[in-house]
This record gives sequence, C-alpha cells and structure tokens, in this order.
Amino acid sequence: MKRIYLDYAATSPTKKEVLQAMKPYFFDKFGNPSSLHRFGQETRAAILEARNTVAKFLNCGAQEIIFTSGGSESDNFVLRGISNRWHKPHIIISAIEHYAILHTCQDLEKQNLIEATYLPVDKFGLVSVSDVKKAIRKNTILVSIMYANNEIGTIEPIREIGKMIEKLKTQNSNPKSYFERSEKKGSRATVRGPYFHTDAVQAIGYLNCNVRYLHADALSLSAHKFGGPKGVGVLYIRKGIKLSSQITGGGQEYGKRAGTENIPGIIGLAKAISLIGDKKYKLRIKKITTLRDRLISGVLKTIPDVILTGHPKERLPNSVSFCFKYIEGEGILYNLDLAGVAASSGSACTSGSLEPSHVLIACGYDHKTAQGSIRFTLGEDTKEEEIEYVLKILPKIIKKLRGLSPYWRKNV
Amino acid sequence: MKRIYLDYAATSPTKKEVLQAMKPYFFDKFGNPSSLHRFGQETRAAILEARNTVAKFLNCGAQEIIFTSGGSESDNFVLRGISNRWHKPHIIISAIEHYAILHTCQDLEKQNLIEATYLPVDKFGLVSVSDVKKAIRKNTILVSIMYANNEIGTIEPIREIGKMIEKLKTQNSNPKSYFERSEKKGSRATVRGPYFHTDAVQAIGYLNCNVRYLHADALSLSAHKFGGPKGVGVLYIRKGIKLSSQITGGGQEYGKRAGTENIPGIIGLAKAISLIGDKKYKLRIKKITTLRDRLISGVLKTIPDVILTGHPKERLPNSVSFCFKYIEGEGILYNLDLAGVAASSGSACTSGSLEPSHVLIACGYDHKTAQGSIRFTLGEDTKEEEIEYVLKILPKIIKKLRGLSPYWRKNV
Repeated sequence: MKRIYLDYAATSPTKKEVLQAMKPYFFDKFGNPSSLHRFGQETRAAILEARNTVAKFLNCGAQEIIFTSGGSESDNFVLRGISNRWHKPHIIISAIEHYAILHTCQDLEKQNLIEATYLPVDKFGLVSVSDVKKAIRKNTILVSIMYANNEIGTIEPIREIGKMIEKLKTQNSNPKSYFERSEKKGSRATVRGPYFHTDAVQAIGYLNCNVRYLHADALSLSAHKFGGPKGVGVLYIRKGIKLSSQITGGGQEYGKRAGTENIPGIIGLAKAISLIGDKKYKLRIKKITTLRDRLISGVLKTIPDVILTGHPKERLPNSVSFCFKYIEGEGILYNLDLAGVAASSGSACTSGSLEPSHVLIACGYDHKTAQGSIRFTLGEDTKEEEIEYVLKILPKIIKKLRGLSPYWRKNV
Repeated sequence: MKRIYLDYAATSPTKKEVLQAMKPYFFDKFGNPSSLHRFGQETRAAILEARNTVAKFLNCGAQEIIFTSGGSESDNFVLRGISNRWHKPHIIISAIEHYAILHTCQDLEKQNLIEATYLPVDKFGLVSVSDVKKAIRKNTILVSIMYANNEIGTIEPIREIGKMIEKLKTQNSNPKSYFERSEKKGSRATVRGPYFHTDAVQAIGYLNCNVRYLHADALSLSAHKFGGPKGVGVLYIRKGIKLSSQITGGGQEYGKRAGTENIPGIIGLAKAISLIGDKKYKLRIKKITTLRDRLISGVLKTIPDVILTGHPKERLPNSVSFCFKYIEGEGILYNLDLAGVAASSGSACTSGSLEPSHVLIACGYDHKTAQGSIRFTLGEDTKEEEIEYVLKILPKIIKKLRGLSPYWRKNV
C-alpha cells in the first residue's frame, strides 16, 4: 500500500543532502571540539561554520546562538534560565503555546518561582497585541508567544508584539529594577525588560525568522521540523541577557550549555537551514500553499458539518486543520492510517491523550467539537495526487464513522 | 602523515555498525514516536527495543531508562532533579568528579538549594568507602561518585560504596524524614536515603555496569564515549525515586524528559551497547590492557622525572596518564600533534584552560607538576605499532621541551 505522510508538523524525514553533510562527522571528523589536537580543531572549525550559517539566517551574532538538544530544551532553557536570575518575576505566555512552554510556565508557577499570565486568543487562535501590552507589569521579565501554532497553523503577530515591546523599552526611560536571585541575595539590578521570546519551531521554513525584523530577544528552533535530524535545536538569545545554564559542566556553547557538542546534529541543522534559503524556496512555498488550499476547499465542499480551525488567512502554508462534528479525531486518524494516510488528531505531543486540545478549547470550541479534530500538515514532498487521494477517501471515512456515532444519529 | 588517535576518553568515532543501524531512522522510519499512525508506531517500537537493550545491559527495568542528550545532561538531571524535590538536602560527591557533576553541585550550593560535601581522594585518586560513610548526614539525599575518573583512569570502589549505602538503608529501621519542596510546601515525606548515583561515562565498555551488582540507584552514560553517536546519553534511575523533570513539555520518556526522541541517536546508542557484550569483548579488553601496560612501562623506562598519575592497578584498561616534570602538558600535546599523535593534557572539557587539573590537585600534586600532565586513552582500533611510535617520539619531544624549560635547567 502507498503511504502518504501528511504529518510534517510532527516531524519530517531528514533530507538526503543533510545526512550527506552529517556523514563525515561520524567517523572521519569525529574529534571532540574541546580537544586541542587536529581531530578537535577540525570539528571546532566545523561547528563555528555551522554557527555562522545559523546566525546569518537569523541575522544575529554567532555568539547569540546556543545549540541545544531540540525545541523543548530551547523553550525550557529560556523560561527557566531567565526566570532563575530574578526573584519571582512575571512571565506572559499565550494559552495556546506548545507544551514545552505551557507546562514549563505552569511548573515554574507551581514551584512559586514566577507569576504567570496566560493570554486568551480569539476564535482563530490569534493573540492580540494590545492584550500583551495590557498584561505587562512592572515585574514582567519575559513575554513568550509562539510564531505559528502547531495544531491550527495560526500565525501570531510576532513582529507587531516585538515592535510594541521594543517601543515600550525605549519609552521607559527608567529601566526596571529587579531583585536578583542566588549569589547576590537581595541585591538589585536594572534591566530594560521585558524580553521577548518566540517559539519558531513550526514557523521556520515558511516565515521570516530574521530576529531583527521580528524584534525578538530570543527564539527557539528544532532541526527535525525542517528536514534536519532529531535531537538538535537552537536557542537564539540576544547578547547581554542574563540566562542561567540549565546544564552545567564543561565550557561548551560559550559557557551556557555544557556537554560535548552533537557535531553531526549541528552540521545537519545548519545544512537544513542553508537549504531553506535556496532559489527554489518561494516556488516550494507557493506549491505547498496551493495544495493546502485545495485540501481545505475540497473538504469544506464535500463534507458537511466540518469546521476549519485556525485562521482562514493567517495560517502556515502547510497547515490544514478541521473539526469534524459528531465523531472523534482518533477514529478518523485510525481509518486514514488504514488507508495509508498519516495525519494527526492534534499535536504529536498530545496524541493518545483523552483530553481535548488545549488550543481548540482556548479558541472557544466545546469539548465535543474539539475531539473531532484532525490536522494535515504538508511538506516539500507532498504531491497533488496525494491530496486528491485524501479528498477521495476522507468523505467516505467521515460518513462511515458518523453512521456509527450516537451523536450524529441524534442530530439527523 | 599518519594520524594516531589516543584520546578515546574525549570521544570515539561512531562505529560503522552503529551508523548502519541508525541510517534507516533518518529517512525511511522517521515518524514521531508520539504519533498514532504507522510512521509513529514503527519508531515507537524501535525505541522500546532500544530501551530494552539498554535495560538488559544495565540489568534494570525498561521504565528505569531515560534517554537524554548526553552524559552532562544525565548528570545534571540526577543532581538537579533529585535535589529539587526536597528542602535543602545534603549531597556528597568526590573532589575529582567530572565538571558535569562538580560544577552542578557547586551551582546548586551557590544557589543555596543544597548543602554539599566534596570528599577528598588519596594520591591515586581513590575515594575511601569509610569517608563516604562518615560524610553521610541525616539530610543526605544523594551520594554521587564516578565509576572511573576521566583524567587519571582510577576506578573507584563503586560496588563497595553501593553495598555500604544499601546496608545503611536496611539497618535504618526508621527511614529519614524530609521536607518536600514545591507543591506540598512544608509537608514531610519519608524516604530511605541516600540515593547512590555513579557517573559511568568512562567505565562503560570496560567495567561491569550491572546496576544490581553495583547497588546503584542511578547511573549516567554517554553514547559517544563507547562508539555511539554524539548527542545522546542515558540516565538510569531506580523506580520510585522522586525526580523533577528538567525539560518539561510533552510526555516523552515516561513523562520525565520532554522533547521528540532523538531516534537515530537512541538506536545508535543501543547498537553500541549491544556491541560491548559480544564474544570478542574479553579479547579486546585484554589487547587494550596489554598496549596500555606497554605504553606505561615504556615511558617510565625511557623518560626521567615522570610520574604515572592515577592508580597503578585500579585503572581503566585504556587509560594512561603521566605528569612530566618541568614542562607543560600543552607543549607536549602540541608537539605530539605535529607528529600526528592526538592525546590530551587533561579532560577535553578543561583543555585550553590555564588552571591545572582539579583532579591532580585533589591527588596532592602541586600546580607545577600538575601542569605537566598528559593523558593517552586507547580504543579498540589502537594498534601496537601506534604505541611503539609514541614510545619512539615522546622521549625526543620531552627532551626538546625540557631543553627550553627554565625549571628544568635550574634543576639539572
């Protein structure tokens, strides 16, 4: 049976060119970058080059790049690392953040280490810039809003939030005064906060990740979401921001993140980034957008009682998400899988959970509707015939499942 | 020029069979293990199999294995994760731990989160079991002693320490009472502490890592030190031990460590572990031990004013370390490198630092002597002629450097 993969937001295959670039770093060039001899020198140079590639792409300095083990570590790092420096600061996130942000914020709050605000979103999943502005308090050290949502594909007004926060900092002629934690117990320090972080894990490859353009102070990436290998990510953090190491030990990553560098992973991540910006970039996005729109319009046309979740316009070019009323997403998923189609009933990280998606609940959907959610996320290799195949089988699957559903029968 | 790699303690090349095992998981089997569809099912099954391989090797349950990004993360995880659960517990480590333990312990102490004891070692780098016993207090939650030292190769009496601690727990009919942190602020809980952790990063492949045999409650591993890939490690943690997640988010690794699993890395780690236990295992160790002894005796015979650091007998089969008096390790290293030989002046993580090795200082060497340290660490691929080559060139290098050294001239 043909297998059709439409779950690129969960993970993507490592690109051939990426694995090709990684290969020499398993055997031939395997030295520890901290070693002084030639084996170490060549990997040290390779990492520096990779760092420069990433920095150029994000339009930041090489020293502002920290390689991590992935998006979740990057998100944890920025939240835990910044909040650890201050006595009970305030952090603002949206209610629809990825669990790596949401659960971390909740964990810090539960430990009584921070105060937190969880911003609501509108029915499309949009965060309002003025809500962010209103939520900022005297002790707000960090605002973290995702660039694009992993479940519904909604693109948040990151640049506008970034600009608003930056303006606030400049207007505020008296920088805020914070109580420092740890060593200098009770001592005060002044910073121009709040810092602005965005989880760009789903955005990269589709949206502009230039941190100057976005006015972002920090940004998280994960390689495996854009054709790089699993197990490696990036935290961009603007120079001068105080950040406690979460992994201490050796002096790697400018003393900010200990542990022998994952060299093949870092090389692969940089290679995957270098492929984003190539000549065919815009063409690829255009093709994916066309397929996305075909899938959306086809489903809405042929299947009754279906809701397109997320924003109709401000959505990722590769993201399609629906709620099919009266049935459960898991059932649809299972039947799609039997027909060779891999999709998701939410984010991969929450799949298998019986709780309805926190994202859909935040958008105002009731539990029953939210449980009928299905997400298709397209990739570079997605073909027109694959979309047509989904459009052929999905109406039958939905019809079959609804035939078995007590809610549906009650309704008709 | 031929290149001779004698720095296996810093890192090792990924074995061909290991990369071969990893390859399918970059393209063909790339699904996110949290996904419900077939792409996810096959990687979920693969990870489970890898977990079982590791668990069998360590003689523990699969649920006691947490895959991490490496040894440093594992070490940080156990120290930070355990200490976070209690109000200011006491932690005992040795003075010669790897920085991932030492600096983390110091960091927690500086943050006023723990009390810490740094145990001295004898001139060979041995920790005394009775010192550990004496240091245990009412509030000692964790003892962490490395299995074998990365700089001098000394093997610590891990099994004896483990047995002593276990006996203590059984004798102590009233388990200790601790104040819990976080949620249940001020509430008490009883545990049979202290827990016993060992950093086995250098030991695996050479020493018995059966956690029941060692009586260890927790153990850290790093794949790239034994022919696996960089960027992946293991924390074994005995069932029932309370451990705060350091990376929160999705429910991966039994809810203990969030983030999409580094599948190729995990598969590679398990493959490398499976290769340790094969038939030729004892033969390989015997060969390496012979080469080690040849290098040691050759150097001691042909070069004056040299000290074999570490224990003469209780040392890793692949580890050779010296202090050459009157000269600096960096200079020797540089000249060896020019002659095609990669060695280390200490651990890779401290190379480039001007501070003398904390390990050698703890063994009682003065700063000047400690600065003349060189470490050779052998691997499976090390050949006799490579050792003979080192024995040929090293005396000349030492002689040349001493000719330039003011300390040497003062002395002769």
